[in-house]
Amino acid sequence: MIDFRTHPDDYSHWRLEFDGNIAFLTMDVTETQGMFPGYELKMNSYDIGVDIELYDAVQRLRFEHPEVKSVVMRSAKDRIFCAGANIKMLGGSAHGHKVNFCKFTNETRNSIEDATEFSGQRYLCAVNGTAAGGGYELALATDYIMLVDDGNASVSLPEVPLLAVLPGTGGLTRLVDKRMVRRDLADVFCSVEEGVRGQRAVDWRLVDEIVPNSKFVETVKERANEFAAASPRSTSDRGLELSNVEREIDADLIRYSLVTVEMDRQLRTASITVQGPVSAAPLEVTEIAAQGCEFWPLKVARELDDAILHLRLNEPELGTLIFKTRGDGKLVLGYDHLLLANRDNWLVNEILLFWKRVFKRVDVTSRSLITLVDPGSCFAGTLAELVLAADRSYMLEGQFEGEEAPPALLHLGEANFGTFPMGNGLTRLQTRFLGEPESVVAAQKMAGQPLDAATALDAGLLTFALDDIDWDHELRMLLEERASFSPDAMVGMEANLRFPGPETMETKIFGRLSAWQNWIFQRPNAVGAKGALKLYGSGTRPQFDQQRV
Amino acid sequence: MIDFRTHPDDYSHWRLEFDGNIAFLTMDVTETQGMFPGYELKMNSYDIGVDIELYDAVQRLRFEHPEVKSVVMRSAKDRIFCAGANIKMLGGSAHGHKVNFCKFTNETRNSIEDATEFSGQRYLCAVNGTAAGGGYELALATDYIMLVDDGNASVSLPEVPLLAVLPGTGGLTRLVDKRMVRRDLADVFCSVEEGVRGQRAVDWRLVDEIVPNSKFVETVKERANEFAAASPRSTSDRGLELSNVEREIDADLIRYSLVTVEMDRQLRTASITVQGPVSAAPLEVTEIAAQGCEFWPLKVARELDDAILHLRLNEPELGTLIFKTRGDGKLVLGYDHLLLANRDNWLVNEILLFWKRVFKRVDVTSRSLITLVDPGSCFAGTLAELVLAADRSYMLEGQFEGEEAPPALLHLGEANFGTFPMGNGLTRLQTRFLGEPESVVAAQKMAGQPLDAATALDAGLLTFALDDIDWDHELRMLLEERASFSPDAMVGMEANLRFPGPETMETKIFGRLSAWQNWIFQRPNAVGAKGALKLYGSGTRPQFDQQRV
Repeated sequence: MIDFRTHPDDYSHWRLEFDGNIAFLTMDVTETQGMFPGYELKMNSYDIGVDIELYDAVQRLRFEHPEVKSVVMRSAKDRIFCAGANIKMLGGSAHGHKVNFCKFTNETRNSIEDATEFSGQRYLCAVNGTAAGGGYELALATDYIMLVDDGNASVSLPEVPLLAVLPGTGGLTRLVDKRMVRRDLADVFCSVEEGVRGQRAVDWRLVDEIVPNSKFVETVKERANEFAAASPRSTSDRGLELSNVEREIDADLIRYSLVTVEMDRQLRTASITVQGPVSAAPLEVTEIAAQGCEFWPLKVARELDDAILHLRLNEPELGTLIFKTRGDGKLVLGYDHLLLANRDNWLVNEILLFWKRVFKRVDVTSRSLITLVDPGSCFAGTLAELVLAADRSYMLEGQFEGEEAPPALLHLGEANFGTFPMGNGLTRLQTRFLGEPESVVAAQKMAGQPLDAATALDAGLLTFALDDIDWDHELRMLLEERASFSPDAMVGMEANLRFPGPETMETKIFGRLSAWQNWIFQRPNAVGAKGALKLYGSGTRPQFDQQRV
Repeated sequence: MIDFRTHPDDYSHWRLEFDGNIAFLTMDVTETQGMFPGYELKMNSYDIGVDIELYDAVQRLRFEHPEVKSVVMRSAKDRIFCAGANIKMLGGSAHGHKVNFCKFTNETRNSIEDATEFSGQRYLCAVNGTAAGGGYELALATDYIMLVDDGNASVSLPEVPLLAVLPGTGGLTRLVDKRMVRRDLADVFCSVEEGVRGQRAVDWRLVDEIVPNSKFVETVKERANEFAAASPRSTSDRGLELSNVEREIDADLIRYSLVTVEMDRQLRTASITVQGPVSAAPLEVTEIAAQGCEFWPLKVARELDDAILHLRLNEPELGTLIFKTRGDGKLVLGYDHLLLANRDNWLVNEILLFWKRVFKRVDVTSRSLITLVDPGSCFAGTLAELVLAADRSYMLEGQFEGEEAPPALLHLGEANFGTFPMGNGLTRLQTRFLGEPESVVAAQKMAGQPLDAATALDAGLLTFALDDIDWDHELRMLLEERASFSPDAMVGMEANLRFPGPETMETKIFGRLSAWQNWIFQRPNAVGAKGALKLYGSGTRPQFDQQRV
């Protein structure tokens, strides 16, 4: 089982150090500490275990270190920055693991860019030696790449010539869309095993600066100081220490404090129930730091994030996620109000940005997403995003016969109108109503109001409203139907229906680049017995089917 | 061998009829006339042969029928519009054929939209019965969908539930991006085998209008008349009859009149040489119609288009296309001048739009594209797009020792600055210089001037300039290297590097949608012995690997 929870004290592969406003995130992978047997993490190559630590570090830098305004990513290995994803690990992994490993890795790279853009923590990368494949892709996720100019250090994407796969962790996309490397030069660069070094790397826009070895450490520090000085991040608050996310895992049940996951292996579903707040939000923003990780919005976000990651990597056969909530929608709106009224507070900003990333993680989760709005639920504001993120949402009209709970109510709130943009840059409501933008305006007028099923359906916020006679039967039919479909067809369908409208680097990475990489990860030229990924390092040359498609 | 050349007199599956300004394109597939043995084209299902006729019809409507302002697509079968791509054909096809069949089909759908948008020939679709899968996707390519309201006629995308593949001929993308169907309704629609009919089809934006059976023919005619009346297409000219594209195919050589294709099966390359004009362009626009299919720009475009299609479907092992030209660049610019100065002439407009489509076909051709600018070449204006469309372009500096031909010159021209947008909506120069838009401005100042290799290299228009000592050796190395790479990795790499910047419905279809479909076309759940595509119609239920990725 892959556990996404870790702590700097337990890191095997990274070191996190501080010098005033600057953090140094140093990669020093322990060869023998791979997550699975069968490979050694040589030359700062990585597996998902290495990336879990990186994810944790990026997250902690934002919450625990308000003083940090610039982050230097570097390597502790001599003349090696990072050799990318471990090839033996990749060659030995099941298709589903490869795909989900790449997805999580991509999300972590995106979170680095998100910290640079929205948290005032600008990442720069100090490439002291070879940055190959995923190593260069890691550098590409930072905002400024510095390369030592010693005739040896180079950046490269040798996946195509060496392994017959793509630089699929954002590499191809970031090359032409972020760094805007000319497409023909990108073609050359991706064909050259040994990569590019020195002035050519600058000329081709592959790095931002080259620095002689003798001045490298000093110049890196200088740039980091410049970036820190220009950062808008400004607070004298102490950081919020992220406690361990507690959970209990049984055979078919995962219990967090505020999130519960019930698994039905027959129907292949996981029901994720989020508990709303039990009391009103604090009145003062200072109270948030005092509550720390117990602050309801932060606690829920962390538990939900962990639950999604756990299900993705450890429960591949559960093809449908069902979102439910329990609580009082008005209390959720109260928390939203506190947060949105104090967005200029650094901690509030981090909590909202974290929710944004959690919802984006939901969006790119390759499982069918169904949200059920039933009596006792509290889909309001932030939590109402789960209604809008779903492939389908259902709401009960009226009450269940013989039960006392009053009819369900759905509340839109200010948070649904710009706080949580999707990867495509639009809100979930804008994406939903691409063909009828007037419905976004109408929805905005309903913000704060309790909406019953008929009103919500009429406003286009639900897929279906059902009465209690149909509820159980219809949902059973839906879940059985979903379970009868090919999981692959679902993956492809959902990836195409969820992101209409504009495209961004992010949607391109999860859409086009990942899809082509997944295709290649199925092709004998890469993964067959005579494929390049399988034979790498064996001394035997791969044999390719020469047909183009 | 698949031949893309046909003529209405030879159609087996479509009828083209006219009523004043309106054309009727009637699908009436002959079951027994499939292109390959092993399946029958029942219920207006199609294979590539059916689509070749459609492509031909759409093309002829534009060139041969300036009077046609509105095109009605309809079916001659009772209560069946079209059942989509033939499933037995798909199930029995090699992966490469499926992929290239879908690509060509997509291009033809795009050309329908192009005719609606740019030629004033607005397509409408009269759905008289079942429009399933590819049948509804065909309707989606038109600008207005009318559905008979008889309690039977329906539109559907049953690929996911029935076949475990995607509606991959643009269906998913057009659903949410063109018709802007709400994503959750799209999810429901794509899960329901029997599809949607009547008012719900209108409410969900799946069709534009429903009409009772008794008034269907009359109302379709009425709409077609309205569209024709609103069309900007206006000329009293007679059409230009498209003659047969003549060619001779030998083992390793294809000879058209102005295009030659030399195949090297060892290096797996096809060298495509385009012959420039031998005399100056006519002075008067009226001369174009007089020259007809012999008019140089039209003749070259038609031959080049046919050559690319031929290579794609019939020569899958030739992984690299090498573009060369022979002639006088100034004469090419003369033709460009004639065309661009007369863009308001309908025929000129069609010729330029055709070139636009040919270049787009080049862009999405999954072969490495190399352009060689050598002495005697005439890469100027329109033909210079082949330099910009290439994955890499090489130019000889100076002359070949012992040869008399003067050094090569490259000419940009007005045609390179907006006449031939790529699928992403940008010119090839804008795409090339995404990171340095000032280079587009600089290039524009060079329009019309002869550029030698050093100048062109400096302007960023070439990948490399080589002298005659290096030329043969370097190119040999390049082609051998390319031939040594995995064809699949090339496909994925090129698909990702060629389209940076904005995305459109077109780039989404060829990028994201096609990539996911190709992935699914490799997965056992669809194409394995127990997969849905293989077992369809056998009465045996498919068995799925239930893991999500």
